[in-house]
Amino acid sequence: MHAAMIHAGGAAKLQAAGGVRSLSFDASSPLQLQSGESLAPLTVAFETYGALNHERTNAVLVCHALGGDQFVASPNPVTGRPAWWPRIVGPGRPIDTNRFFVICANVLGGSMGSTGPGTIAQDGQPYGLRLPPITISDTVRAQSMLVEALGIQTLFLVVGPGMGGMQALNWASAYPKRVFACATVAAAPKQSAQNIAFAELGRQAIMADPDWRNGAYLTHGVRPVRGSAVARTAAQIAGLSASEVRARFDNARTKERFGFTTGDNEAAGMRQNSAGYIDRFDANSYLYLSRAMDGFDLGADFGGQLTNAFKGADTRHGVFAFSGDWRYPVEESREIARALIAAGAEASFVEIKSQGGHDAYLGDEPAFEAALTGFIDAAAAARGLALQGGAG
Amino acid sequence: MHAAMIHAGGAAKLQAAGGVRSLSFDASSPLQLQSGESLAPLTVAFETYGALNHERTNAVLVCHALGGDQFVASPNPVTGRPAWWPRIVGPGRPIDTNRFFVICANVLGGSMGSTGPGTIAQDGQPYGLRLPPITISDTVRAQSMLVEALGIQTLFLVVGPGMGGMQALNWASAYPKRVFACATVAAAPKQSAQNIAFAELGRQAIMADPDWRNGAYLTHGVRPVRGSAVARTAAQIAGLSASEVRARFDNARTKERFGFTTGDNEAAGMRQNSAGYIDRFDANSYLYLSRAMDGFDLGADFGGQLTNAFKGADTRHGVFAFSGDWRYPVEESREIARALIAAGAEASFVEIKSQGGHDAYLGDEPAFEAALTGFIDAAAAARGLALQGGAG
Repeated sequence: MHAAMIHAGGAAKLQAAGGVRSLSFDASSPLQLQSGESLAPLTVAFETYGALNHERTNAVLVCHALGGDQFVASPNPVTGRPAWWPRIVGPGRPIDTNRFFVICANVLGGSMGSTGPGTIAQDGQPYGLRLPPITISDTVRAQSMLVEALGIQTLFLVVGPGMGGMQALNWASAYPKRVFACATVAAAPKQSAQNIAFAELGRQAIMADPDWRNGAYLTHGVRPVRGSAVARTAAQIAGLSASEVRARFDNARTKERFGFTTGDNEAAGMRQNSAGYIDRFDANSYLYLSRAMDGFDLGADFGGQLTNAFKGADTRHGVFAFSGDWRYPVEESREIARALIAAGAEASFVEIKSQGGHDAYLGDEPAFEAALTGFIDAAAAARGLALQGGAG
Repeated sequence: MHAAMIHAGGAAKLQAAGGVRSLSFDASSPLQLQSGESLAPLTVAFETYGALNHERTNAVLVCHALGGDQFVASPNPVTGRPAWWPRIVGPGRPIDTNRFFVICANVLGGSMGSTGPGTIAQDGQPYGLRLPPITISDTVRAQSMLVEALGIQTLFLVVGPGMGGMQALNWASAYPKRVFACATVAAAPKQSAQNIAFAELGRQAIMADPDWRNGAYLTHGVRPVRGSAVARTAAQIAGLSASEVRARFDNARTKERFGFTTGDNEAAGMRQNSAGYIDRFDANSYLYLSRAMDGFDLGADFGGQLTNAFKGADTRHGVFAFSGDWRYPVEESREIARALIAAGAEASFVEIKSQGGHDAYLGDEPAFEAALTGFIDAAAAARGLALQGGAG
């Protein structure tokens, strides 16, 4: 992709540093936040794969989850982490980069180049907690600015797992004419009480760390390593299946003494490897992003009627859920499907039997890949996209 | 109650200090733990209310929850906290102390007088993490030693909420002839993955606190106040209803900046009031007790068949669940009821519609009180106990 593709005029500027590409919007294009405040300048870091076809009809936006970033199909050049969704996005994969132009943007409030609490503000200091609260819908509007700047009128597909699924739903609801198809994976129409409670514990653990410094740890040259380790554990546990959780922690029946050293070991390990760790997990980003998820309730934006979020739209929907996912149970995805069908939308709902937990979407799940491929192929045929490769 | 009531012979010694009564068993009566280790000496702190009748048939054992203690119907003399279940236990209440002899014992691993991680070991130092792991069944066997020492052959009723319900179920399963009736309130036949995960976060937060000192904070004269605040928050959130959780944390849509100061404020508040706080919440006790709950799986003790835990028993069961309890959902109580009925037990199952969460059992829930009263009155009639007051 070349800078020449940017169509936003003088307001948007393409930048690249250390392998991270981003689009920056100056004060003439402020992002109006749901909180009522506005954000400018605004930076949206993103990655692309494949080529946009001549008709500009083959663009796919992948929205990442809480633990993800824009490097959906290539290694993260900052952390060295491998691509996070290589089974799904790549040549010959369900989201085939030989066929589609794939865009993935770091969320607002993230730590991989998009405007977030670690971004240097106008006064030369990191925002820290001075960054206004961010919502899922704010992130979607920032992505919309990126997509427009790339000259794309209608996305063929918006897709995402977990928090990414929330973004996909919000896209379909906010911009029905600009989303041909929408795939929601292991997500929910609103954050559940258990997930909110879980996130609050992670946040409390971060804030309890003396090195958090009221959010200004970057200014003080420290990192809340121990608190972050706890929050990271929260994210790890969140991905396990119920039986994996039981197997991991149900050792009260054994003869072993308690191994209450995980926190220390993790913290020590992370200090030794702090650069990599810090890049992977920014404490303040966790605070902002988990809060954004806590506040997600699409139905509440439509008078408490989720169905109203989708009324009159032509977007095709695929809703995918995993049987072992106790953080985003199948029932919550079924609620999305019910609302879609009640709204008259074309919607398919697929429950994948899986031994994995929430993170099953990352794993070896042939039934998921087959179902997603089928959904995408049918949508591509309806969109008039060629079945294989090339620029369509 | 007088020391003369103690029937355990030379092995048991009644003690009282600072308003806390306890029974201590010397090395001749070690408690065999499920881990294979044994515990001696063993202390079980307890409180009693009402009078034992001549036939010794009116004894009720109340088992407390994670946040509770033995002071079910009277103020805690150490912390000054009021009785924790005054709506249920007391004169004229569903568990009528004019009618029943009520016993409540601090759990093993607790911090209110029973042997726990804060107990001074033989070497003059607190056990800390040297205390062997404790299970629900270990606590039940310790209670059984207390009940025997009090000269009570058969308990009229064993009852408890949450972790107390786990103990009640374990009592009915382990000692079917010694439990006439069993009431399980807002509990589950095994700890769910979400609860295990939640507890693990609380534990990690404690262990991440530098003042935890690998569990030896008492020896070092410090307290893991900040980590404990996080774990305490976990316990508080656990008691809220789903809508209360959402109302409390869903402020991402407001104009307010994040109020990331709870941890600090709580910690500061607790330092100012540390004596009371410490008595209410001991970090190591939280580690031991939450692990005990994580390991609870009554069906697993019976080849994976919960029904087998109750086969052939004559105990009458009442299973009470609250509709808003997302930590111990109604469905998990229904699983207990199904197993009981499949085992041929006399069992009633009551779902109470409630706006409260798990802590609804503590609140103003007339339907719960009426149902519990009905269950107890029917059992008392079957047991031949007088309907009102006196020694039956």
